[in-house]
Amino acid sequence: MNVGMIVYLLGKILEIIGTMMACPFIVSLIYHERSGIYFLACGAATLAVGSLVCRFSRPKNKSFYAREGFVVTAFSWLLLSVAGCLPIYFSREIPSFTDALFECISGFTTTGASVVPEVERLSHCMNFWRCFIQLIGGMGVLVFMLALLPSTGGQDLYLMKAESPGPSVSKLAPRVRQTAYSLYIIYFILTGLEIIALVIAGAPLYDSICTAFTTTSTGGFGVRNTSLAAYGVPVQYVVSVFLFLAGFNYNFFFCLWLKKWKEAFGSEEIRWYTVIFFGAVGVITTTLIFQSGEGLEEGFRHAFLQVGSIMTTAGYSSVDFDVWPALAREILILLMLVGGCAGSTCGGIKVSRVLIYLKTVGKEISQLCHPRSVKVLKVEGKPLPHAVLRSANIFLITYAAVFVISMLLVALDGYDHTTNFTAVASALGNIGPGFSLVGPTQNFAHFSVLSKYVLMFDMLAGRLELFPLLVLLSPATWSRR
Amino acid sequence: MNVGMIVYLLGKILEIIGTMMACPFIVSLIYHERSGIYFLACGAATLAVGSLVCRFSRPKNKSFYAREGFVVTAFSWLLLSVAGCLPIYFSREIPSFTDALFECISGFTTTGASVVPEVERLSHCMNFWRCFIQLIGGMGVLVFMLALLPSTGGQDLYLMKAESPGPSVSKLAPRVRQTAYSLYIIYFILTGLEIIALVIAGAPLYDSICTAFTTTSTGGFGVRNTSLAAYGVPVQYVVSVFLFLAGFNYNFFFCLWLKKWKEAFGSEEIRWYTVIFFGAVGVITTTLIFQSGEGLEEGFRHAFLQVGSIMTTAGYSSVDFDVWPALAREILILLMLVGGCAGSTCGGIKVSRVLIYLKTVGKEISQLCHPRSVKVLKVEGKPLPHAVLRSANIFLITYAAVFVISMLLVALDGYDHTTNFTAVASALGNIGPGFSLVGPTQNFAHFSVLSKYVLMFDMLAGRLELFPLLVLLSPATWSRR
Repeated sequence: MNVGMIVYLLGKILEIIGTMMACPFIVSLIYHERSGIYFLACGAATLAVGSLVCRFSRPKNKSFYAREGFVVTAFSWLLLSVAGCLPIYFSREIPSFTDALFECISGFTTTGASVVPEVERLSHCMNFWRCFIQLIGGMGVLVFMLALLPSTGGQDLYLMKAESPGPSVSKLAPRVRQTAYSLYIIYFILTGLEIIALVIAGAPLYDSICTAFTTTSTGGFGVRNTSLAAYGVPVQYVVSVFLFLAGFNYNFFFCLWLKKWKEAFGSEEIRWYTVIFFGAVGVITTTLIFQSGEGLEEGFRHAFLQVGSIMTTAGYSSVDFDVWPALAREILILLMLVGGCAGSTCGGIKVSRVLIYLKTVGKEISQLCHPRSVKVLKVEGKPLPHAVLRSANIFLITYAAVFVISMLLVALDGYDHTTNFTAVASALGNIGPGFSLVGPTQNFAHFSVLSKYVLMFDMLAGRLELFPLLVLLSPATWSRR
Repeated sequence: MNVGMIVYLLGKILEIIGTMMACPFIVSLIYHERSGIYFLACGAATLAVGSLVCRFSRPKNKSFYAREGFVVTAFSWLLLSVAGCLPIYFSREIPSFTDALFECISGFTTTGASVVPEVERLSHCMNFWRCFIQLIGGMGVLVFMLALLPSTGGQDLYLMKAESPGPSVSKLAPRVRQTAYSLYIIYFILTGLEIIALVIAGAPLYDSICTAFTTTSTGGFGVRNTSLAAYGVPVQYVVSVFLFLAGFNYNFFFCLWLKKWKEAFGSEEIRWYTVIFFGAVGVITTTLIFQSGEGLEEGFRHAFLQVGSIMTTAGYSSVDFDVWPALAREILILLMLVGGCAGSTCGGIKVSRVLIYLKTVGKEISQLCHPRSVKVLKVEGKPLPHAVLRSANIFLITYAAVFVISMLLVALDGYDHTTNFTAVASALGNIGPGFSLVGPTQNFAHFSVLSKYVLMFDMLAGRLELFPLLVLLSPATWSRR
């Protein structure tokens, strides 16, 4: 294990997060808020520690492999979470350390589950910070670092792999740094476009910025107690459209940028994502019209926003979907598990993996009848490498295992099955709200401290697609072999 | 497709099921019950049709492959279900055809979910029939046929494979017919021992016979309205112990018989089954003592019986476990998914598959840190063939897919998530009761006709481990390629 290199990169991460705390400080100056001072102090302290660490740990040996990649990724997310929660805790706006950490991890992992019953009571700079960390966490802090820093060794690809969602990392550009850079450019353009659209649709500028931060990152934190129900109809449609776009694989936007139209629109994953998305919207709209007696426009708007919000794992709400008809609720629970496309900022299992699973089943059934026939599993028109299939299967099993253990621990609190199941699904899928006691009108404050730590672990494990955290816990990582 | 051969075997199945209807007829003579006449009539008619079919379909071509095996298995279970429900329907003891078919499929698949609110209202011969079809369905009708009939071609292994549970069929004896014969001998010995033990423990003879039929088959139908709560403490312990044994892989008993002690007790699957079983009993006993205030003996007895009943997928109840503490309920829900050992009469995913999944995850994590190391996945001390691993993965995915689609269809009835989830888990795992509206004090009568047919499909799919029914629905099966 190359400890020097790991420590050096962690120091860099601290520098970045410390610098970022300047943003909420500036917001506090605009609104003349006392909490700003904590961002200044914590930011300066974090930056100083980071710089000291970097100065004294200049690694001589630059060897960097998969193991180091996982360890750096896991540790840097833990560091981020602790550093990011300091100003929240010290400002006493969330007075319990566990709750402050929960809120911060929920932010960085773009989950959007909150322990704050009334977010409008928080200061503007605090709400800005909550939304800002979702923006940074959405595309990934390590990806951000890669986009900024010159490469210092072979670490780039391993870090990118460990932090990016999806069964396989597609490099947009030939070099990792360029890829990271392009991703962030697309990401910021989308965010900027949404801010403009929201202002045109009638939202205040501050709300527009915060909402755009949490839409493109599919985070779901809001600055209003009633989430998106606080805004008018046009704002809800703008958010729905950008949510739909946020679930796309970023390859799509990159191809658009390069004017590779055929490649952009030919993507199998995006086709399936669109089919599932609007299939769910259609069915839910129908149930809302016929079973809840809503009008066509109203039903469609609620369905569109809620499917967008749950499938892309953002987690906004415009309505209490916990009282929707059973079929609509079950569809939302399933979408919680599926998530958006790979290579997006969404959580969940991802559409491409679901696609792989379904194709495997289809192939198996036809193979059972014709044992000697040879059929090749194709995804995106190309034969699927066995390693990808294998890792997709292992991902599913691991997801189920982490899910089950978490659910048992959360069950110690004594709540009903729907609460336990959807709280864990929501944390592991980085969604935000669930059903029953974690429904859209509720929050996560009532859980015990143990459950909160379990859910924090799940949020981090879900964001990093399980393995970095599990590698950290495995004895094999620390053996000297 | 060798249609002649398929039709011939289906005729044989009809002959067997027709003959079996003599048993409830004899019971009706003892109790002087009118319903017996329907068993006589339906039995004679089924036997006659079966004999006619066999006579006129003597197949010339004896070629028989996997495809034929799946088709015969699927069709024969459909035939069994329809033929078996005729006396139930015509006697008007269950006046709706859908309900009679549901009860019959629930019987043959050893699910034990009932649409009858008060089983004590049914006649003795009817209750005997319900329990008797669980006995037959538990070990399998095709296995029974193989044990009785001389082999007529190469069909034996394919039929055995399609009907037997578990990731791989282990042949106890070198020839399939001997294996089938040994399985039934062990099965009947266990049932006989339980009848004796139950009578000694104080249960009436009729109740003992019926209960033993549904314990060793892990079916769970009862002849009392309150299931096992109707009997005394000794009877509950006897059933618990036999339930525990019923979850064993039959290899174990076969090795005992051959006095291969080391092989019998060295089985990894049985070790894990025991650990999970008593681990669950321990945790649930603790929660019952500390959270529900039960005494040690009472808590242990309820936990032992309920874990045995749910994990082996029998589905008896001695207590309303729907009001147990949350942790105990979540553990039962998980055990519903796990099930017993492969090669037992249990439903569910099976312990050996769960073991394979967990080992895969462990291997993957250590491989992530040491990408160049080579680690071989071993089960029962032997390297796991890739085909078994692959089929276990595909099974899990297919299980999830069937689960999800069923849950969406059942959700149309508008019940809560816990009802939908546990009703499908219960049907697919061949368990019986679930939670909430399908809890131990409830029944399945309130579902819509659509939901009942979906659950019937799930019961059959779960009993046959998914693929025979899916093969039947696949276009590839019927293509002339």
